[in-house]
Amino acid sequence: MRDALRRYRRACDYLAAAMIYLKDNVLLAEPLRPEHLKPRPLGHWGTCPGLTLVYTALNRFVAETRQRTLLVTGPGHGAPAIHANLWLEGTHAEYDPQLSLDGSGLAELVRRFSWPGGFPSHLSPEVPGVIHEGGELGYALATAFGAAFDDPDLLVACVIGDGEAETGPTAAAWHSPKFTNPGDGRVLPILHLNGYKIASPTVYEAMSDDELTAYFTGCGWTPLLVDVRDTGDPDTPLAEALARAHRQDTGPPPMIVLRNTKGLGLPSTSPDGTPLEGTFHAHQVPLDPDQLESLEQWLRSYRPEELFDADGVPAPDLLAVPPEPALRLGRVPQANGGRLRQDLPLPDVGKFAADRSRQESPTEVLGGWLAEVVRRAPDTFRVVCPDELQSNKLGALLDVTDRQFDRAVPGHTEHLGRRGRVLEVLSEHLCQGWLQGYLLTGRHGLFPCYEAFVSIVDSMVNQYAKFLKMSGEVGWRAPVASLNYLLTSDGWRQEHNGYSHQGPGFINQMLTKKAHTTRIFFPPDANTLLETMHRCLSSTDLINVVVAGKQSSPVWLSPEEARAHCRAGTSVWHWASQEGSPDVVLACAGTTPTVETLAAVQLLADAAPELRVRVVNVVDLLSLCPPDRHPNGLSDEAFVECFGEDVPVIFAFHGYPSAVHEVLHGRPATQRFHVHGYLEEGTTTTPFDLLASNRMTRHDLAADAVRRARGWSSLGGDLARDFQRHRDELLAAAYRDGEDPAEITGWRWQR
Amino acid sequence: MRDALRRYRRACDYLAAAMIYLKDNVLLAEPLRPEHLKPRPLGHWGTCPGLTLVYTALNRFVAETRQRTLLVTGPGHGAPAIHANLWLEGTHAEYDPQLSLDGSGLAELVRRFSWPGGFPSHLSPEVPGVIHEGGELGYALATAFGAAFDDPDLLVACVIGDGEAETGPTAAAWHSPKFTNPGDGRVLPILHLNGYKIASPTVYEAMSDDELTAYFTGCGWTPLLVDVRDTGDPDTPLAEALARAHRQDTGPPPMIVLRNTKGLGLPSTSPDGTPLEGTFHAHQVPLDPDQLESLEQWLRSYRPEELFDADGVPAPDLLAVPPEPALRLGRVPQANGGRLRQDLPLPDVGKFAADRSRQESPTEVLGGWLAEVVRRAPDTFRVVCPDELQSNKLGALLDVTDRQFDRAVPGHTEHLGRRGRVLEVLSEHLCQGWLQGYLLTGRHGLFPCYEAFVSIVDSMVNQYAKFLKMSGEVGWRAPVASLNYLLTSDGWRQEHNGYSHQGPGFINQMLTKKAHTTRIFFPPDANTLLETMHRCLSSTDLINVVVAGKQSSPVWLSPEEARAHCRAGTSVWHWASQEGSPDVVLACAGTTPTVETLAAVQLLADAAPELRVRVVNVVDLLSLCPPDRHPNGLSDEAFVECFGEDVPVIFAFHGYPSAVHEVLHGRPATQRFHVHGYLEEGTTTTPFDLLASNRMTRHDLAADAVRRARGWSSLGGDLARDFQRHRDELLAAAYRDGEDPAEITGWRWQR
Repeated sequence: MRDALRRYRRACDYLAAAMIYLKDNVLLAEPLRPEHLKPRPLGHWGTCPGLTLVYTALNRFVAETRQRTLLVTGPGHGAPAIHANLWLEGTHAEYDPQLSLDGSGLAELVRRFSWPGGFPSHLSPEVPGVIHEGGELGYALATAFGAAFDDPDLLVACVIGDGEAETGPTAAAWHSPKFTNPGDGRVLPILHLNGYKIASPTVYEAMSDDELTAYFTGCGWTPLLVDVRDTGDPDTPLAEALARAHRQDTGPPPMIVLRNTKGLGLPSTSPDGTPLEGTFHAHQVPLDPDQLESLEQWLRSYRPEELFDADGVPAPDLLAVPPEPALRLGRVPQANGGRLRQDLPLPDVGKFAADRSRQESPTEVLGGWLAEVVRRAPDTFRVVCPDELQSNKLGALLDVTDRQFDRAVPGHTEHLGRRGRVLEVLSEHLCQGWLQGYLLTGRHGLFPCYEAFVSIVDSMVNQYAKFLKMSGEVGWRAPVASLNYLLTSDGWRQEHNGYSHQGPGFINQMLTKKAHTTRIFFPPDANTLLETMHRCLSSTDLINVVVAGKQSSPVWLSPEEARAHCRAGTSVWHWASQEGSPDVVLACAGTTPTVETLAAVQLLADAAPELRVRVVNVVDLLSLCPPDRHPNGLSDEAFVECFGEDVPVIFAFHGYPSAVHEVLHGRPATQRFHVHGYLEEGTTTTPFDLLASNRMTRHDLAADAVRRARGWSSLGGDLARDFQRHRDELLAAAYRDGEDPAEITGWRWQR
Repeated sequence: MRDALRRYRRACDYLAAAMIYLKDNVLLAEPLRPEHLKPRPLGHWGTCPGLTLVYTALNRFVAETRQRTLLVTGPGHGAPAIHANLWLEGTHAEYDPQLSLDGSGLAELVRRFSWPGGFPSHLSPEVPGVIHEGGELGYALATAFGAAFDDPDLLVACVIGDGEAETGPTAAAWHSPKFTNPGDGRVLPILHLNGYKIASPTVYEAMSDDELTAYFTGCGWTPLLVDVRDTGDPDTPLAEALARAHRQDTGPPPMIVLRNTKGLGLPSTSPDGTPLEGTFHAHQVPLDPDQLESLEQWLRSYRPEELFDADGVPAPDLLAVPPEPALRLGRVPQANGGRLRQDLPLPDVGKFAADRSRQESPTEVLGGWLAEVVRRAPDTFRVVCPDELQSNKLGALLDVTDRQFDRAVPGHTEHLGRRGRVLEVLSEHLCQGWLQGYLLTGRHGLFPCYEAFVSIVDSMVNQYAKFLKMSGEVGWRAPVASLNYLLTSDGWRQEHNGYSHQGPGFINQMLTKKAHTTRIFFPPDANTLLETMHRCLSSTDLINVVVAGKQSSPVWLSPEEARAHCRAGTSVWHWASQEGSPDVVLACAGTTPTVETLAAVQLLADAAPELRVRVVNVVDLLSLCPPDRHPNGLSDEAFVECFGEDVPVIFAFHGYPSAVHEVLHGRPATQRFHVHGYLEEGTTTTPFDLLASNRMTRHDLAADAVRRARGWSSLGGDLARDFQRHRDELLAAAYRDGEDPAEITGWRWQR
C-alpha cells in the first residue's frame, strides 16, 4: 500500500500542476508545446503537495476506520489538489458525468480549472465536499468546530495553512475545545507548516518545536509534531499520527503540526536560478510558461504514463486507495447540509405574545419563545453569543439550557454546563465561524449581538453571502437554514456605554449584498419581533438581520396585526393616522424611532389638530425597494397607498439616513423623503439627549413635519420653533438632573 | 511606602465607586441619602480595583526607575479607576482647573463621570494619557506595540482584560514580539485575570497555571504569574514582577499574568444574597441604588475620612505616591502624539512621474516614490501590510528597506531583516492596530491592502473614526498624521483569484463616517496616484482611502495635470471630449472604469461621430457631495460645469453603484445619473468577462450612452444592440481561448 499511496500522490500532484498550466496534451502524450499551455496559468502550487498528502492519508484512515470524516480546507487556494483528489476518488464523476474517470474526464478537469465558465481558482460551493471557500483566510478552524457541534459520530479534519494561522480569528479558534463535549463531533486540526506565505517565512515557521508544543499545549491540545521534510516516506508518519489521534480518548484532544516542504516535487531552482522547492517562490505559479523546457521536465518527473493508461484511466492500484464510495471525503453528507436539514419544530407565537396594555421588552418576550424552540429542538438549534445573552434580556433561554463550557472552574458560576444550547464567547469571529459551520451542515441557529460590534464580522458576512449566492447557482446544493442575526443593545439605547457602542453600519453593509440573500427587519415591538423571528427561523438561504430593542417599550400591535404587518413589510398604522389624504406622512423604522414618531404625532395632535398626519411603519426595510430591485419590494400601488405620490414624508430611521435613501432609489419623487437617523453623534448621555444630538427627538420630527407639510409653509415655522424650544428645555433639565424628565420617560401613547 | 500604596489604592477605589454612584455628598460627610445618588448609576466596577492596583504599581515603578511609561488600558470600561488615578496624581487638574486636587475638584470629578456633558463611561480622547478607547475589545495589545515601534526609550504597559483576551485580534497580537527589535520600545502586557466577563468565567480563567505558562512561552514571552487573590499585600508581588521584568534584558520578553479578585473590596454578598466580590456579579454596578444601607456600608468601608481632609484634599502620603509630574502616566507626551508629530520630508513627485507615452503600473510608480520617503524618514514612517507588498507591486520599497522580523529562520528568505520599515503579517487586525498606535503617538504610515480584505478591519476603522472625531473636539489634542489606506489588487483585476477577492464594500463603509474625517480617492493613473499619495501623507486627522490599480495601464495625465485634477476633485477631460454642450456625459472613477470609459468614447467616435460626448473623471469621490454635506464637495457651479444641468450621465464606477447615488444625494436632478459598477457578480474568469457580468464593459457603457443621450432615443437602440452583439462575440472568444481577445488586451487610446 505504501507504494500505492506514493503513486496516488504523484498522480494528484501531477494533475494539480497540469490544472495550473495545461489546456491540452494533458498527459504529455506528445512533447510539450506552447499551444498546450493555458494562456494565463493560474493557481497556487505551493500548498498542493501538502494538501494531497493530507487528503491521501485521510483516505486510508477512513478506509481503515470507517470513520465518517469531513475535510475543511483552510488554504482554499490549493483547490487544484482537492480537485485532483475528488476526481481520482470518483466523486467528481458522480456530480458531473463530464468529469468521468478516464482520459476525457481528466482532460475536462484539467482544462476547466481557472478557465472562464469553469472551476474558480479557489474552492467554492461548486466543489463537492466543500463548506469553506478559503479565499479570505482565518475561518477554517471555527467553521470546522461549527460542523462538529451536535454530531458526535463525525470527525472534522481541518487543514490550516501557516499563513492563515497568523490571523486573529484562527488564533482565537484554537481555544474552541473548551466549548465542546462528548455530544459533539471531534475536530482534528492539521497545521500545515510549510514555512512560507507569499513572500516571507510565517510566524509559526519561526517557532521552535518547543514553542509549538508549548503553545498548543497551552491552548488545550495534545500536539503531535510530524516532520516529513527529510523523509522519502511521509505517508507513514502522518498515518501513524492519524491513528494515534484516533486512538486517543482521554486528555486534551490531539492536533497535528505537519512540517512539510513547500511545493514539494518542484525542481530546486528555475532556469534563471530562482530557488523553488521549499521556498516561497513555490507559492503560486512556480515556473514561467516561457521556461517551457523546465516545465516539461518538471511535469514529466511525475511520470504520468506510469499512473494513467493510454486512455487516461488511472491505474488500478490508484483506484484502490480511496475508501468505499459512501465514505469518500467528497461525498460526506454534512458537506451538503441542506439535504440533512429538517425544519425546526417552531412553536406558535400566539401564546407567547405580549399584552397591548403593557410595556414589554421585545427581546425578553422573544426569550420565552426561544426557550420553547430550544426545548423542542434539543440538538439542531444553537445560540451563539459574544457574552451578551443576559444583558440582551434573553435570559429565559438559560431557564431551559446552559452555556456550554467544557472546563470546570472553581469560582461562582450560573447557567454554565458541559452541555448546553448556548455558546458564549467574547469573540464575534468565533460566534460567526461556529454558526456558519453549524448551518452549512444542516442545522439552525441564532446570533444575538450588540449592534455596534457585529461589524467585527463584516468581512466574514461578505464571504458567507458570496458562498450562499454561489450555492444557489449549484443545482445539487440543497437550501440551508438562514443565518439569523438579532441585533440588540442598539445604539439609541447605548447612551450609557457611549459612542463606541453606537453604530448601525451593519445595515449599510448588508445593503451591498445580492437582493435574494438579504433581509433586514425592524420589528417595532415585542409581537412583531416574535412574528419576524418565526419567519426568519423558518426561512432558508438568507441572511436575516433583525434589529430589536431590549428596553421596555409599547406593544403597538396584536399578534394578528403583527402578522399582517410582517406580511406587508410596510403598513399604514391607521389607528394613529387621520383618514383621507394626508398633509404629511410620518414614517418610522426601528423601536426607538417608532416611539418618537408616535410621540410626535401626539405633539402634533395637540399643537396642530388640523394637520392631517399619516403614520407608516416599516418592519421590512427592503420592502421600500422597487420590486425590480428586491423580491420583497412593495408594488408601486402598495407603495403609493402608504406614502402617497407627492406628500412630504418625515422618516425616522433607526440607522444612517443613507440606508433609506439607498433602498428608495428608483422610486419616484424620492426628494420628498426627509430622513432622520443616526448622524454619527454620540457619547455617554441620556437617551433623549442622544436623540437630540442626532436631531431625532419627537420634537425634531414634529418640527420637521409642520415645516414641510403641504400647505403649512407659513404656519409651520412658528410651531417648529415652539417644538424646538420645548426640546431644549427638556434637555437642560436632563443635564441638570442627570436623567431625562418624566415627560419623556413616562410618555405613553394615548389611543 | 507599603501603607501609602494601600491607602492610595483605597482612595482610588473609593473614588471609582463614588463616580459610579454619587452626585453629591461625595465624601460621605453626612449619612447617605437617596438624593445623593445619581439617578442612573453607570460604570463597570469589577475591573476597577485591578486597574488601580496596576496603575499604582506603575506609579512606584516609574518613580523608582524614571522609565518613561505609556499605559494602554484594554478594559476601557474601567474608566472610573483611571480617572481616579489621573485626579490623584494631579494630571486632571492640569488639563482642567475645575478638577483641582481638593474637595471642589473631587466633587466635580465624581459628578462629571457618566453624566450628560461630562466624561463618558469609557475611556476616550477627552482623557489625558489615553490612546485607546477600549469600548470594542480586542485591540489594546496591537495598539501598544504600535506605540512602541521606533521609540526605544519608551515602555508601553498594556492591561488586557481576560474578556478581551478571548478575541481573535488579541490572540494574534501575542505574536507581536517576533516583529520588534531593540530599536523599538518595550511592551509589557499585563493580562488581568480576574476570572469573569459579564456573566461567565473567561477562557483564560479556565486555564491552569501550567497552561498559561505554556501558552505564553509558546507565543515567545517569559510569563510571570502573579497571584494576588489571597494576599493582604498585592502591591509587593506586583512590584517585584515589574522590577524583574525591568531587569530582564535577554531571552523572551517578560509579560505578567495577574490573577486578581474581581471587584475586590465589595461585600461578599448583596442584601438579597447575590454573591458579589470575586464573582461576575461585580462586573458592572454591583449594588442596586435601593440597597442604600449596604451601599453606604460598602462605601464607608474605604474610610474616606482617613484619606481626604475635611476640604477634600488628599492626605500628604497619598500625594507622594505618583512620580514627579513630568513622568506621570497621564502626562506621557506620546499619548498626545500630535504634539510630537513632524511633517514627513516628502520628496517632490515630479521626478518620479510616469511618461504619458507609456503604460505603467500605478503602484509600481508609487513604490519608487515611497522608497524615497522611507529613505528620508528612516524612523517615523512605516508600511504595514498583510503579506502583499510585492504582489501589490510596491517591491521598490524593499530595495531600500527590509521587512522587519526578529526571528532568524533557516530557510530561504529575501528582504527580511531585524530592522526594516515594513511590517508584513497575515493579519489585517495586527496591521491596523499597530498602525493606529504608531500614528497616535506622532508618527506616519501607510496600509496597503487587498481591497476585498480591508473589510476585515471595518469595525476597527469604525472605532478609530470615532476616536478621531472626538479627538478633534478636545482642545488640547494636536492633529495626528492621517490613517492612509492604499487599496490595491482591486476587484476588477482579481478575476484570477475569484469571487472572494472581489468586494468594494469598504467604500460604502467609509461613507457612513463623519464628513470631516473621511476622504476616498480613485486616482485613474500613476501620476494622479503620486499626487494623491503626496496629499494623503501631508494631511492630518483624516482617514484616506486610496484605490489604485497595480496592472499596467495608460498614463492619462502629466504631473501638472494630475495636480490640477486632484485639486479640483472632479474635472472634465477636455482632450477626450467634444467641445460645447454634450448629448451625454461619460463619467468615471477608478482605474478600470476610466479605461472602459475612454474605450467607450472611442467606440462612440467610430460608430456615432455626430454624438457629442463629454468625459468627466472623478478622483475625489466626495467632491460629488453637495458642499454642505462634505468639505470637499464641488460648488454648485463647478458641479454644473462638469455634469451640466440636465444631460444624461453614464457613470462608470469602481465600486457598488449605491456609493455614487449616496454621494450625489442632495444634488439636483440626480435621476439622470446612470451608474454602472460592481453588481456583486464574480468568479474566476477573464477581466473582460468580469466587467461584462457586471455590465461595465466599454460596450455596455457605449450602449447605455447612445440609448440615453439627448435626442438619440430613436437612433440609439440599433447602435446599442450592435455594441452588445460585439461584446458577446468578444466574450465567446474569451471563453474559447481562455483569455481576452487582443482587441481588448491590446487596446490603446488614440489621441
